[in-house]
Amino acid sequence: MSHQQSFDIRTRGRGTTEITAEVARIVRAAAIATGIAQVFVQHTSCSVMITENADPAVRRDLETLAARWAPDGDPAYRHDTEGADDMAAHARSLLAGSAVSVPVGGGELLLGTWQGIYLWEHRAGAQLRHVVVTVLG
Amino acid sequence: MSHQQSFDIRTRGRGTTEITAEVARIVRAAAIATGIAQVFVQHTSCSVMITENADPAVRRDLETLAARWAPDGDPAYRHDTEGADDMAAHARSLLAGSAVSVPVGGGELLLGTWQGIYLWEHRAGAQLRHVVVTVLG
Amino acid sequence: MSHQQSFDIRTRGRGTTEITAEVARIVRAAAIATGIAQVFVQHTSCSVMITENADPAVRRDLETLAARWAPDGDPAYRHDTEGADDMAAHARSLLAGSAVSVPVGGGELLLGTWQGIYLWEHRAGAQLRHVVVTVLG
Repeated sequence: MSHQQSFDIRTRGRGTTEITAEVARIVRAAAIATGIAQVFVQHTSCSVMITENADPAVRRDLETLAARWAPDGDPAYRHDTEGADDMAAHARSLLAGSAVSVPVGGGELLLGTWQGIYLWEHRAGAQLRHVVVTVLG
Repeated sequence: MSHQQSFDIRTRGRGTTEITAEVARIVRAAAIATGIAQVFVQHTSCSVMITENADPAVRRDLETLAARWAPDGDPAYRHDTEGADDMAAHARSLLAGSAVSVPVGGGELLLGTWQGIYLWEHRAGAQLRHVVVTVLG
Repeated sequence: MSHQQSFDIRTRGRGTTEITAEVARIVRAAAIATGIAQVFVQHTSCSVMITENADPAVRRDLETLAARWAPDGDPAYRHDTEGADDMAAHARSLLAGSAVSVPVGGGELLLGTWQGIYLWEHRAGAQLRHVVVTVLG
């Protein structure tokens, strides 16, 4: 069995938007008791990630470390025609990934208490992002 | 078809525990000839990873690089109330991920000869970790 | 429903080989309308990744950042018997991962316009790499 639904998110530039509730709704609509839900972004400069959902400082600190891993406008970049943040965004997308998969049990997302699903925008400016959720069981 | 089973691991603080045999047993119990097995941890400060299973020094070296990527007690962290290792653990969890998926063929995990599946504890102290294995086919 | 096919790639050492067309062909052969396609390498020193498919400089820049994350022959490595590039390759494999999963809709890979699937060789020398594609729906 499979069920697929997608939605758009308008981001406000770099930072995270929680999408756990949206994904949970799609999983319920799927009416699949046991399986996997995959959340995928059709972009190479934003990510989907699972991280701690309690203290927003965790996501700010991940942003700090991501900026160390891939600084904006690094002089070593050769891909620099789309702005100082563009290559950094592709690199952050590699680090955090473009998809997460979560087990489904009893028809619900089997996330731990402290796990949330986030769309992580890596570009400096606002973007429209397309998210595809696929539930298999 | 889908099959789901979970198990707990008591870690002894930072370091890896091989769980390949445990996952392989669940895959066999699933009796699914062709598909995918997903291994997921319900936590944001440990990971599941696939890496080389021959020389334990590989995992020690990954620990060394992970500590460079996210040092304990970095002065830039703002999430610091749960100990010097906590934010570092969330960041390592982003790096290594909270799940791996392995193809299943002939009813067995299709791992390469040198691939092992590891629970990677990122917190300094011992923890009880919950692992969910879902097999789809 | 499930469909599984594998293929080999002979790499020429460090760098990327696009495999999107190969994976798309397997997805079409699967004749699964809605689901997920997983692309997995049975190795711990190369990766599969999704990244920008337009400007090859993006992949060169990812190589630059990967070399910062895990330099060849770092004096801290203890796994050094297989050459200066071997531990670096395992670490890059952790960073980029050994699998990607892409949603399937209307019987086709649901990649965004700028997303390509790449085999990323991390070893300095040429290697024969085995890729397993599993389509579930």
